[in-house]
Amino acid sequence: MDQAMFRSELAQQLRVDSVRASTAAGSGHPTSSMSAADLLAVLLDGHLRLDFDRPDNPANDHLIFSKGHASPLQYAAFKAVGAVEDDELLTFRKFGSRLEGHPTPVLPWVDVATGSLGQGLPIGVGLALAGKRLDRLPYRVWVLCGDSEMAEGSVWEALEHAGHEQLDNLIAIIDVNRLGQTGPTMHGWDLTSYSARAQAAGWRTIEIDGHDLDEIESALTQAEDGDGRPVAILAATQKGKGVAEVADKPGFHGKPLAHAEESIAELGGLRDLRVKPAKPDADAKPHVFDTGSGGLPAFEQGTELATRKAYGQALAALGDRRGDVVAMDGEVSNSTFAELFRDAHPDRYFEMYIAEQQLIAAAVGMQVRGWCAFASTFAAFLSRAYDFVRMAAVSRADLRLMGSHAGVAIGEDGPSQMALEDLAAFRAVHGSTVLYPCDANQTVQLVTAMADLPGISYLRTSRGAMPVIYPPGEQFPIGGSKVVRDGDDVTLVGAGVTLHEAVKAADVLAHEGIQARVIDLYSVKPVDSATLRRAATETAGLVTAEDHWPEGGLGEAVLSALADQPAQVRTLAVHEMPGSGEPAELLGQARIDATAIAEKARELAS
Amino acid sequence: MDQAMFRSELAQQLRVDSVRASTAAGSGHPTSSMSAADLLAVLLDGHLRLDFDRPDNPANDHLIFSKGHASPLQYAAFKAVGAVEDDELLTFRKFGSRLEGHPTPVLPWVDVATGSLGQGLPIGVGLALAGKRLDRLPYRVWVLCGDSEMAEGSVWEALEHAGHEQLDNLIAIIDVNRLGQTGPTMHGWDLTSYSARAQAAGWRTIEIDGHDLDEIESALTQAEDGDGRPVAILAATQKGKGVAEVADKPGFHGKPLAHAEESIAELGGLRDLRVKPAKPDADAKPHVFDTGSGGLPAFEQGTELATRKAYGQALAALGDRRGDVVAMDGEVSNSTFAELFRDAHPDRYFEMYIAEQQLIAAAVGMQVRGWCAFASTFAAFLSRAYDFVRMAAVSRADLRLMGSHAGVAIGEDGPSQMALEDLAAFRAVHGSTVLYPCDANQTVQLVTAMADLPGISYLRTSRGAMPVIYPPGEQFPIGGSKVVRDGDDVTLVGAGVTLHEAVKAADVLAHEGIQARVIDLYSVKPVDSATLRRAATETAGLVTAEDHWPEGGLGEAVLSALADQPAQVRTLAVHEMPGSGEPAELLGQARIDATAIAEKARELAS
Repeated sequence: MDQAMFRSELAQQLRVDSVRASTAAGSGHPTSSMSAADLLAVLLDGHLRLDFDRPDNPANDHLIFSKGHASPLQYAAFKAVGAVEDDELLTFRKFGSRLEGHPTPVLPWVDVATGSLGQGLPIGVGLALAGKRLDRLPYRVWVLCGDSEMAEGSVWEALEHAGHEQLDNLIAIIDVNRLGQTGPTMHGWDLTSYSARAQAAGWRTIEIDGHDLDEIESALTQAEDGDGRPVAILAATQKGKGVAEVADKPGFHGKPLAHAEESIAELGGLRDLRVKPAKPDADAKPHVFDTGSGGLPAFEQGTELATRKAYGQALAALGDRRGDVVAMDGEVSNSTFAELFRDAHPDRYFEMYIAEQQLIAAAVGMQVRGWCAFASTFAAFLSRAYDFVRMAAVSRADLRLMGSHAGVAIGEDGPSQMALEDLAAFRAVHGSTVLYPCDANQTVQLVTAMADLPGISYLRTSRGAMPVIYPPGEQFPIGGSKVVRDGDDVTLVGAGVTLHEAVKAADVLAHEGIQARVIDLYSVKPVDSATLRRAATETAGLVTAEDHWPEGGLGEAVLSALADQPAQVRTLAVHEMPGSGEPAELLGQARIDATAIAEKARELAS
Repeated sequence: MDQAMFRSELAQQLRVDSVRASTAAGSGHPTSSMSAADLLAVLLDGHLRLDFDRPDNPANDHLIFSKGHASPLQYAAFKAVGAVEDDELLTFRKFGSRLEGHPTPVLPWVDVATGSLGQGLPIGVGLALAGKRLDRLPYRVWVLCGDSEMAEGSVWEALEHAGHEQLDNLIAIIDVNRLGQTGPTMHGWDLTSYSARAQAAGWRTIEIDGHDLDEIESALTQAEDGDGRPVAILAATQKGKGVAEVADKPGFHGKPLAHAEESIAELGGLRDLRVKPAKPDADAKPHVFDTGSGGLPAFEQGTELATRKAYGQALAALGDRRGDVVAMDGEVSNSTFAELFRDAHPDRYFEMYIAEQQLIAAAVGMQVRGWCAFASTFAAFLSRAYDFVRMAAVSRADLRLMGSHAGVAIGEDGPSQMALEDLAAFRAVHGSTVLYPCDANQTVQLVTAMADLPGISYLRTSRGAMPVIYPPGEQFPIGGSKVVRDGDDVTLVGAGVTLHEAVKAADVLAHEGIQARVIDLYSVKPVDSATLRRAATETAGLVTAEDHWPEGGLGEAVLSALADQPAQVRTLAVHEMPGSGEPAELLGQARIDATAIAEKARELAS
């Protein structure tokens, strides 16, 4: 069989197997797979450099299905390269199968989960940045995008950023099949419309007929020849190509074909071709950054420092000790103090501008290649990327997030800049760790611990300076807490700014003869149930105080720890929409300051 | 004073007042205000049509400061038009002042809160859509954007959508001062770079020197002459223009000027000019849509229907009865059944494509004009717009959100499509209402109630069909619950799919002689504390079950209601990352099905 025939047959096999898998499943997206089958066939046969036997080869190309619903095509491709057997292909979407409805990294050849649209390309930007600036290896990042998902702003963040960074190792193949889920896309087959957008962002574009194997070959060859610009291949295709009943017709999104047997016959029947993608250099080694042996920053008790600044100092120091640590920020590095890392380790710092989705996606992309990525911005603005964090958990990504400027304690800037929902949002991320330090030495220890934590960890830091209450080197285990004041009458639980308010409240109460135990709940998730349960037993009850809305934060974390134990708990949190003002005024107005804590404690202790 | 001189003086006054306000506050963004002062002066003097005495005039133009940190400029403008006195101007950022650090609608001339960047333009798209297609009034929507925020994907969603909808009543004035918070933007003063992007999206662009009053006048005049395209005015400016110490210099973002007195002198000193913006037609009336008198849909008990489908039917019926109801969807209207509204009321339906930030922003924009907006997509994908929802709460917006396909119960599509954090996220929105119906008649009642709810309400619906258990017309007050099964041994609490599992568990337990009370907690926020507290007292304890991660959802809502009351609670939720499978398999694996509920109930009741 000559190459043209082989590719044509391979493409039909990918279509047939997409139909078979979705028919076996009784659901799935065969038509969205069929449109891109020719693109995949040519990519697999002569362009993709990926050793499926060694998915951990650092020199492998990366292939991301940003249109994750085309999973039948992806799995059909895995079968065609011999990575997945036909039996397994037909377990698609079944309970216990690795071949989930949308791809996840339970398969070793899937870097990241997709299925929430518009995420593959920005994650690809992260991988491409890793290739250019961290690994310094010649791998390419191929991203198969749908045309519907081009409406996602995150795609434009990726276009913008890739153009700016001149990532010519990034190739987006856009399957312009003109039909979305409910109807036509905004631009139909107007490839020029997409090209103009991508070109404006500094991309090279190639417009082709996505079913013409020669045009695809030419486009992929051109794309591989880097000229300093990322490449977008705009391929006009037909959704459901190859089966007349559905081809280019609306109403067939996300449905198995009604007449699978006839459709398979129309596609030429079953085939069992095998394609061998090229293998990359087997001995390529990623770049390793030099490390020093500096100590961690240490702060004298009684001095004052903002935890956000301690974050920056700790991160810069961590970068000295570990060459795998990288950092990025959303254009507020002089507020988050990520700039301290940037200045110390410019080669491992990435300015992501005000594009929080791209910020998180870049970190996800880099951790695919094993880099220990820290991403920071104002905690309030991390909410912009919540879907990316959610999906990062599905991707089993190891990700370190720092959100600064938490709560009403920021003061004058007002509610738009105040994170008051971040604890709830990040607690509700699967497998997450949520940390909230109250002093600089604690921050240093927690940042250091984050570097080794699996999953998604989140560090909440504060704007204002706070007293250093712990000695340098004190240990703060994840899942632990600190009893900073002993007492058996009542328990006060705080973290961050409210820990200091709780200590002040304990002082006031002590003068009144009430001995309050104060717990620093720096590890909001996992939470130190044992210490909380002991406090519930040994004292009259617990007062929790948090610079956060009442829902889903520290208070409810405490309640969850005590769910099956009779306990008296009073939760203080921010109930009314704050305005501007001085931090103390706003803490007082929200009734989460020492006065409010003491008042609740008296009720419990009396 | 001739007009040229007046405008020049007015611009200097705006600068001086921006400096004075931020100096009085000790914080704020004078330099970001000074760059846009000339643009504002010309806009106020002869272009903006806004009756500051009648901010509720439906014919008023709208002016949104998407760069909300330029609040000193906005407030200085409010002073210049006589809406705010000088005394109040100097309360900027002080506790209790209406002049918050970033603008919010506590001021009657502020439509929406800004300060999270990249939101003003997509909200402007919503207002412009309202002007064209709902109000049908000739008002214009002016949006002052910063150049740094052009990196936000949401801005590109807005460009794309406005171009597609040919919103020539939308005028973006982009203050290209080339300096972000930490350093230069990606594009500096390359206006053509921005123009190319906007033009690619179908916009008309005008490039000007943003400090040349004649060029500004010409640009605004051209912009007012609609030609079917939205207009972007790209104005090259200097950050801190007018004060040599800071003009066009990095390092002065978000800081009061160091030498305010000298700087004010350099700007020509205090002025007290008044400018009178043009007033729009005083008698203009917004379009009113015809209404009918159809009843609400009713479903027979014992039949089965997905709550998402009941949503679509209810919404379409509501649209019959109320002309102010409008709906929009993120290109999944055949999944959310928003298509039923679209088909019944095409004039009031908006396809927002796969751009969830723009989806929410459009709804926010429309509710500014009093439209009762419902926005829907998969619940998982609403997480894409979480920052927009957070900010909508700061905007005091009335917004109705519907998220479909909640939880592992969706089955085969896998975790990327499963909302498992939405209850936590939406509970932690200020003033929100969170509803989760388990049957079709309940859904109808809750959708109807949402239309009259202030603030942000969220309806969580399910993919699969569920039995209709309530009769048509049954009432479901917000903040209430239903005891669907009486019993005094133990209490089972569920909502949505887990309510049905709880009923099944109660049946099983009844056979064993355990009488379980079953509570349908359809109102997750506000929650029916009284009923829960009674159950805690009258039964051995409560088992909660939710198709959601353990954090921040129904279980913790129950725990919060019982915080100060000794109670035994066992919370069942999804703990492990699900894969694909049949709904029943996944409910079983997650241990939130009838079997798991019954097992926990036995522990409590024994």
